[in-house]
Amino acid sequence: MHAATIRDGELHVMEHPDPEPGTGEVLVRIRAAGLNGADIMQLRGRYPAPPGEPADIPGMELAGEVAALGPRAGRFSGGDRVMGLVGGGAQAELAVVNERVLMPVPVGLSWDQAGGAPEVFTTAHDAIFTQAGLRPGEHLLVHGAAGGVGTAAVQLGRATGARVTATVRRPELRDQVAALGAEAIDPEGFGAHGPFDVILELVGAPNLAENLNALALGGRISVIGIAAGAKGELNMAVLMGKRGRIHGSTLRARPLEDKAMTARLVERSVLPLLAAGTLHVPVASVYPLDRVADAYERFAAGGKFGKIVLHMPDS
Amino acid sequence: MHAATIRDGELHVMEHPDPEPGTGEVLVRIRAAGLNGADIMQLRGRYPAPPGEPADIPGMELAGEVAALGPRAGRFSGGDRVMGLVGGGAQAELAVVNERVLMPVPVGLSWDQAGGAPEVFTTAHDAIFTQAGLRPGEHLLVHGAAGGVGTAAVQLGRATGARVTATVRRPELRDQVAALGAEAIDPEGFGAHGPFDVILELVGAPNLAENLNALALGGRISVIGIAAGAKGELNMAVLMGKRGRIHGSTLRARPLEDKAMTARLVERSVLPLLAAGTLHVPVASVYPLDRVADAYERFAAGGKFGKIVLHMPDS
Repeated sequence: MHAATIRDGELHVMEHPDPEPGTGEVLVRIRAAGLNGADIMQLRGRYPAPPGEPADIPGMELAGEVAALGPRAGRFSGGDRVMGLVGGGAQAELAVVNERVLMPVPVGLSWDQAGGAPEVFTTAHDAIFTQAGLRPGEHLLVHGAAGGVGTAAVQLGRATGARVTATVRRPELRDQVAALGAEAIDPEGFGAHGPFDVILELVGAPNLAENLNALALGGRISVIGIAAGAKGELNMAVLMGKRGRIHGSTLRARPLEDKAMTARLVERSVLPLLAAGTLHVPVASVYPLDRVADAYERFAAGGKFGKIVLHMPDS
Repeated sequence: MHAATIRDGELHVMEHPDPEPGTGEVLVRIRAAGLNGADIMQLRGRYPAPPGEPADIPGMELAGEVAALGPRAGRFSGGDRVMGLVGGGAQAELAVVNERVLMPVPVGLSWDQAGGAPEVFTTAHDAIFTQAGLRPGEHLLVHGAAGGVGTAAVQLGRATGARVTATVRRPELRDQVAALGAEAIDPEGFGAHGPFDVILELVGAPNLAENLNALALGGRISVIGIAAGAKGELNMAVLMGKRGRIHGSTLRARPLEDKAMTARLVERSVLPLLAAGTLHVPVASVYPLDRVADAYERFAAGGKFGKIVLHMPDS
């Protein structure tokens, strides 16, 4: 098979042996695979793949067809359309995936949308519901809302009956974020739009102090992106006065059982809304596998609305 | 009635009109009332009493006998031994208290122990169970464990089957903390004793960085005391990698229904263990009401093991 491959800090498309599914695993013929911030970090050598995942093939999410079943794999049949979050190796023509982390592709989703859906919706759902416990009627702030996780979070917030405010650095992207149901604002002085019950932090430490000051009583801050900086001053007197909580989280390093649990949650809470058209997967650009380097460059340049997706050659 | 009274930043014992119980309230003839950090802060003008509480009579916890019932107060009868957490006004001969925040005094507790029990056990229980979700088999770290909340937290951690490590600044107090079931250590280099699943922070910001580094995967930090400093650097990359949580909390400013809920939890989870002798209320010193200024001075000097309690004159 061909796969995007990291060699000496650069991306190539190289030939690899076809993987073979082990017990409980499925061989997926991949049709599309979304790009994520973690891929860029892995390319730069700052986020190595977890043990047991391909070390040189990036890619944390995929959609495709079941091509073969390993021993005792029984959730899917050959030809089924599946998608899922994986620890690496998704930007390839084939991958073996434990069947417990796979989900069916909802009707109505294109391959490119399905390839860009698992990471952002799983991440956003885990952060704002499992971690932060967002409830109907609450006020959600999403920082950096024009990206993949941001657009997923805005939509999930709206779908659960929360009021959503979204910071979007580039003015030209604000209308598209607003169309998802958020009040789209400039990050400068965002605190004046609070107080916020839940804050999803996708940008980083520069927001920390204002996040705390703009937090409602009993509010929760969920930190899952820190590209703009990791270290900031925490005023614990403010945190105590607000009776607030700060969570940090990542998905990739979690054990299989945890990833399988998040997949079950997404199946139950998110897939029906994708099938019904309540939730959408905005795709900013699609690149064929042999232009993977261009896709990463586009991702790193920022300023996109929605996902960058790699499309695999038809078999 | 006589009451400890703050006048121009100093403590006096002054005469006040007897309070009268309103609907759902109980008049308590107070026998003992513990001192807490919040009292010292209130004396220094940094922690005003919440609206509706006596502005000039300090005291956040009390134990005594039911002296009279207001309209529709039905949980207790005249003469019942009760204790509870209040928003202020406890360091007096009489107080009116909503019956929903009062609890029966467990058999076997002296008045002085009962007067020093509600604040520390409610605070510790709320922080390590309700906020941080401590579970059997986990490793709990209590910072500043020789004080009232610290000794309560160490005992509650042991009672739930957790392993407990406790930092105690003064070497001469470590044996007493160890006797409660903790590994009592010097705060210097505490991180080497981790990783910790739950950290109860009763000291403040100087511990923040090492707390994070010593946190177990999925660990929770509960911040309820910051006398040594409120502001510290938070490394959100570490928080994300640990998939950790930081909570801040105070009890005093909570609404009545929240305080009543914590009282029900303490009745169910803590009072049986106090009655059984599994949990103890260490009392460091008892002062009569007319020596309230000395009691505050003793409290502020630090280095005590357990509670400082004011004892009211017998009626």
